[in-house]
Amino acid sequence: MRTRILTGVTTTGIPHLGNYVGAIRPAIEASRAPDADAFLFLADYHALIKCGEPERLQSSRLAIAATWLAAGLDPERVTFYRQSDIPEISELCWLLTCVTAKGLMNRAHAYKASVDQNVADNLEPDAGITMGLFSYPVLMAADILMFNAHKVPVGRDQIQHIEMARDIAQRFSHLYGNGRELFTLPEALIEDSVATLPGLDGRKMSKSYNNTIPLFEGGRKLLKDTIGKVVTDSRLPGEPKDAETSQLYTIYRAFASDDEAAAFRQQLEGGMGWGDAKAALFERLERDIAPMRERYESLIARPDDIDDILLAGARKARELARPTMALLRDAVGLGSMRAGGGAAAKAGKKKAAKQARFVSFRETDGTFRFRFVAADGEALLLSDTYADAQTAGAAIKHLQAQPDLAENLLLDELGYTVSLDGHVVARGGPFATAQVRDASRDKLLAELRGLAASA
Amino acid sequence: MRTRILTGVTTTGIPHLGNYVGAIRPAIEASRAPDADAFLFLADYHALIKCGEPERLQSSRLAIAATWLAAGLDPERVTFYRQSDIPEISELCWLLTCVTAKGLMNRAHAYKASVDQNVADNLEPDAGITMGLFSYPVLMAADILMFNAHKVPVGRDQIQHIEMARDIAQRFSHLYGNGRELFTLPEALIEDSVATLPGLDGRKMSKSYNNTIPLFEGGRKLLKDTIGKVVTDSRLPGEPKDAETSQLYTIYRAFASDDEAAAFRQQLEGGMGWGDAKAALFERLERDIAPMRERYESLIARPDDIDDILLAGARKARELARPTMALLRDAVGLGSMRAGGGAAAKAGKKKAAKQARFVSFRETDGTFRFRFVAADGEALLLSDTYADAQTAGAAIKHLQAQPDLAENLLLDELGYTVSLDGHVVARGGPFATAQVRDASRDKLLAELRGLAASA
Repeated sequence: MRTRILTGVTTTGIPHLGNYVGAIRPAIEASRAPDADAFLFLADYHALIKCGEPERLQSSRLAIAATWLAAGLDPERVTFYRQSDIPEISELCWLLTCVTAKGLMNRAHAYKASVDQNVADNLEPDAGITMGLFSYPVLMAADILMFNAHKVPVGRDQIQHIEMARDIAQRFSHLYGNGRELFTLPEALIEDSVATLPGLDGRKMSKSYNNTIPLFEGGRKLLKDTIGKVVTDSRLPGEPKDAETSQLYTIYRAFASDDEAAAFRQQLEGGMGWGDAKAALFERLERDIAPMRERYESLIARPDDIDDILLAGARKARELARPTMALLRDAVGLGSMRAGGGAAAKAGKKKAAKQARFVSFRETDGTFRFRFVAADGEALLLSDTYADAQTAGAAIKHLQAQPDLAENLLLDELGYTVSLDGHVVARGGPFATAQVRDASRDKLLAELRGLAASA
Repeated sequence: MRTRILTGVTTTGIPHLGNYVGAIRPAIEASRAPDADAFLFLADYHALIKCGEPERLQSSRLAIAATWLAAGLDPERVTFYRQSDIPEISELCWLLTCVTAKGLMNRAHAYKASVDQNVADNLEPDAGITMGLFSYPVLMAADILMFNAHKVPVGRDQIQHIEMARDIAQRFSHLYGNGRELFTLPEALIEDSVATLPGLDGRKMSKSYNNTIPLFEGGRKLLKDTIGKVVTDSRLPGEPKDAETSQLYTIYRAFASDDEAAAFRQQLEGGMGWGDAKAALFERLERDIAPMRERYESLIARPDDIDDILLAGARKARELARPTMALLRDAVGLGSMRAGGGAAAKAGKKKAAKQARFVSFRETDGTFRFRFVAADGEALLLSDTYADAQTAGAAIKHLQAQPDLAENLLLDELGYTVSLDGHVVARGGPFATAQVRDASRDKLLAELRGLAASA
């Protein structure tokens, strides 16, 4: 079984070099492992807790999406989406809210730290604390449990949130699971060995220290200029340098091969001047970054394409979220009220769900056609015209018996076509974009196969 | 302007006679006022806070919906929906959560009462208190603000929640409104004069006192039997009775005309026996209740029809919720990332939205057709076949020039048809149910008119 690894990126800033080395690059590498089923999402609902600046949130979402894509994230392989494109997340958040003990949230580190700070400042304990900050672990639990993630890579300060997600999941299952666990219990994937890059001043590179080196922002020039500001000691050219204590060397090593790093070290110890060392670091970084930056700039100039990629990711994610949510709604008593549906179904009665079906009809000109209609009523196919009902019926039988025929679809600007024995029998669409067509095609295939399987 | 009045009914029980007189009947009467724009919803997300019993929640939803419909609620006039059918509600709930001060929730009466009880019981202050109970005023604010309700009928104990909804709305607008109020500020409609019916024992009729008289449950027989249990004094037949102190008279009066009530009173004072008085009360109630009960029983036997009515209501509600939510998402920075969309649009740039459009195409048999495609890509119409492109083009021009033609739609099992000069030009659908057809028809009309207006 593949391991589902879920990572959220809060969309409040623009990624810098430290984010790239510490988070982006390792996550992308991990997503390429054969058994990895990586989920990466822009945590824009979380960003609302801290941000309150619409333009910043908006530009951060775009920059973060473009950065991950430019750095090599493969959206075909990774399920890459915006949290706010998944309505099931906020619904699950409410369902979990109803079973979460308030006492559990009282004990959350982030909340307690804010209270302690308020008390130290002689303020009301909850001064300036929003319900967003207080309930944030519930939303995080919804993010994780929605997709039954196995592993969530987190820093040590976030372990508690994963434990809370497990607590909440277990409590939910205890109340509503009839003895079954309704969720995969997530595990924290602690990233102790994660490279943290030093910033300009040698402390950990962080926006809050104002010591960051940009990744793509400001282009080649700003990267060069900022490297020029890396703090060094005052040793002159010709004097041997201590590589181990210089952030120039640490940053260099994060990008270079062992041989390259050893050579750079030797040069420093051999008396290379700091100016030359900075130029060498810049050239080494630029070798990796320049091609990514080119992709980044091309992507960021096409926000519609990024949006399309994220929407396609959201569709992929919702294909999982929807059935999960339907099950959970049913479990809590929000299932369908229809005869045989909802909670009644759990009592062993068979759910009388509508099935996908073929619908034949006669056109006003006397010809015959059929449609293939999904269980939810969406018309997925419209057939060609047939001279008589028998021929139309034969085409339906063919499609019913060989649903995989629909796999050989032809896409054109009118939608896709299904052909049988070389003859176009039906046409789906029209749909506005290739993505919609693809989603409908998957749905068509799934529904046709489902119908064949249940026949 | 019509006044939007929003009422939620928590789906945790089965309505009794007291609910009918105190809440259902007056709300239905109020909904018939010419200037009333009534919204009534099944508050099933709220029910999750208290309930934890899926079967009970489920049967309560069905019984409450059937009761209101049987009692005369007109779902064409009233927007009647399930809270859990509106995904925008839980999303707005999170947006509001992020701006709500935790201190505000700390002061909520219901929460404070639970804490006081725990303290009195020597328990932890938050023992047994869920985040659902604690955050419930935020969800209620979302219910109200989502639809910009003007008035919310509440008892005195709920006034605080309306004030909180106003607080939260103002805070949201302050942060994100650029000087504008983003929500209608709701007002509490205090129902001091509401008739509260006495129960079997003379105290207020309430499930928690176990003194209720059923409305429809158990049919005619249970109603009669329960009335037989109304507590009376021990005066014998022939002795004069004090009508004012008898709950039999109070309940009678809640259903009778003034003349009828006066006559009943006179009989009681004239020495009517309690047994006869109970029989008279039963007969009077039955005159009002029997026809409603018949409708109730017929409705409850057809849960699919109730579901269809609620789904149609949800569609009506979402037609309002969706554009509101789009505006709010844009305001907080969760708007579209597309070029010219989202936050950028606020900066005065024109949004490059897709327009509804006609799309002509050639069939494989050489005939011509067109489709009318909504701005969101949904195909709303498929035309008849035409021998040549010119005739198809002429039909398009006709429809473009006279969008109201589409108002004369014919519904049949294949969907609706649009006719022009007596000739069917196009067919929409197919759609699974009449409701879907109606919703699509409204959309078709709106889109055709929009296109004509922008031409």
